Amino acid sequence: MKGKLFGIGIGPGEAELLTLKAVKALKTADVICVPKSKEQASTALHIVSEFIQEDAIIEHLEFPMSKDISVRLASRKKNADTIAKTLKEGKNVAFLTLGDPMLYSTYSYVMEHLINDFEVETIPGIYSFAAISNTINTPLVSGNENLSVICNWDGNDQKLLQESDTCICMKISSYHAELFNFLSNSNGYDFKMITDVGKNGQQYYDSIEILKEKVPYFSTAIIKKKKA
Amino acid sequence: MKGKLFGIGIGPGEAELLTLKAVKALKTADVICVPKSKEQASTALHIVSEFIQEDAIIEHLEFPMSKDISVRLASRKKNADTIAKTLKEGKNVAFLTLGDPMLYSTYSYVMEHLINDFEVETIPGIYSFAAISNTINTPLVSGNENLSVICNWDGNDQKLLQESDTCICMKISSYHAELFNFLSNSNGYDFKMITDVGKNGQQYYDSIEILKEKVPYFSTAIIKKKKA
Repeated sequence: MKGKLFGIGIGPGEAELLTLKAVKALKTADVICVPKSKEQASTALHIVSEFIQEDAIIEHLEFPMSKDISVRLASRKKNADTIAKTLKEGKNVAFLTLGDPMLYSTYSYVMEHLINDFEVETIPGIYSFAAISNTINTPLVSGNENLSVICNWDGNDQKLLQESDTCICMKISSYHAELFNFLSNSNGYDFKMITDVGKNGQQYYDSIEILKEKVPYFSTAIIKKKKA
Repeated sequence: MKGKLFGIGIGPGEAELLTLKAVKALKTADVICVPKSKEQASTALHIVSEFIQEDAIIEHLEFPMSKDISVRLASRKKNADTIAKTLKEGKNVAFLTLGDPMLYSTYSYVMEHLINDFEVETIPGIYSFAAISNTINTPLVSGNENLSVICNWDGNDQKLLQESDTCICMKISSYHAELFNFLSNSNGYDFKMITDVGKNGQQYYDSIEILKEKVPYFSTAIIKKKKA
């Protein structure tokens, strides 16, 4: 019998934000796959360490961040092939995703190669911005307000920021200067930012001055339109 | 000593989507508060029933859906006063929220009355649309794509739908006809909808025809711009 693939959202970086469903799935996994990238792999493995089987095999998968799309496509296919081989041996595989597997994740690319041939169960995780808003007791939206999430600074992203009641800015490190310019030329917005939520070194900011300099990779801002 | 207020996100309707942190908080609660509204209270209590203390007191709080804002404000204040009284008696209070406490929740209004006088801990929950996207293995966004969430159909909401790569439409029952008109006059979008995710009677649709008629209250659509 073939094994089952679990895509597991493990939340932003705190073991207690795992769901019961994620814990249950982790316990049945023979192989734990984790993307090999910077500190992300160690954060992910630290979160799940107390829940996995003692003899579970840890597999680090490489996904190069190349600008060449063909390199990225090839690595996804190669990693999917590795997982397929394991599943065919009858082993259950858990693919860990910080945050949620269906929101800006590498898992989703790999899943697409496997979903037609194997049983796949994907388990949601707490988004980083959900954790942030709860940590600082700041409602994102209420009533009929709308929300947007951007992680880039092209024309549509800027329109979303201007037209939504609340805008979540992710991956700010790539557009911190543009965001600083935009916000410093308007007094129509409230700004809050957290870096490394739920991790050691979590920091909170409510002044846009922080955007003048390079910000850490895991920086997320909540930008709310001021109410009339 | 005063009690502590926990705002607890319990996810979309499945006990297994509770986080470990939510379960831990539920176990320490002397009083469980739940908004008294349609089936929501019974769904919420059903989800947490196996985790609460045997002698926990269940408190149903009424939040009338009046169009008169002063009625709504008064009920929030009244319920906050009730909770304050319990906290002053040294009891811990857990306020349950389906989904997440910082996304379209009644809890956030009540919290604002209490946060200056009491210890408050708010615990994130899985958003309904996160559960939906994982259930149907449909990535919401990847790469540099952006996302919007609307629950109404005013000018800005429509712009968000048009300018975002993916738009989540919540509370569709109030604008299903307008959304049908919009989508039936364009072939630029992919449509998926789920009703009652994680609950008995969960249904999946991928044709906009369903929008011609009144849809259930817990209906959420994922609308993706077709790629060129």
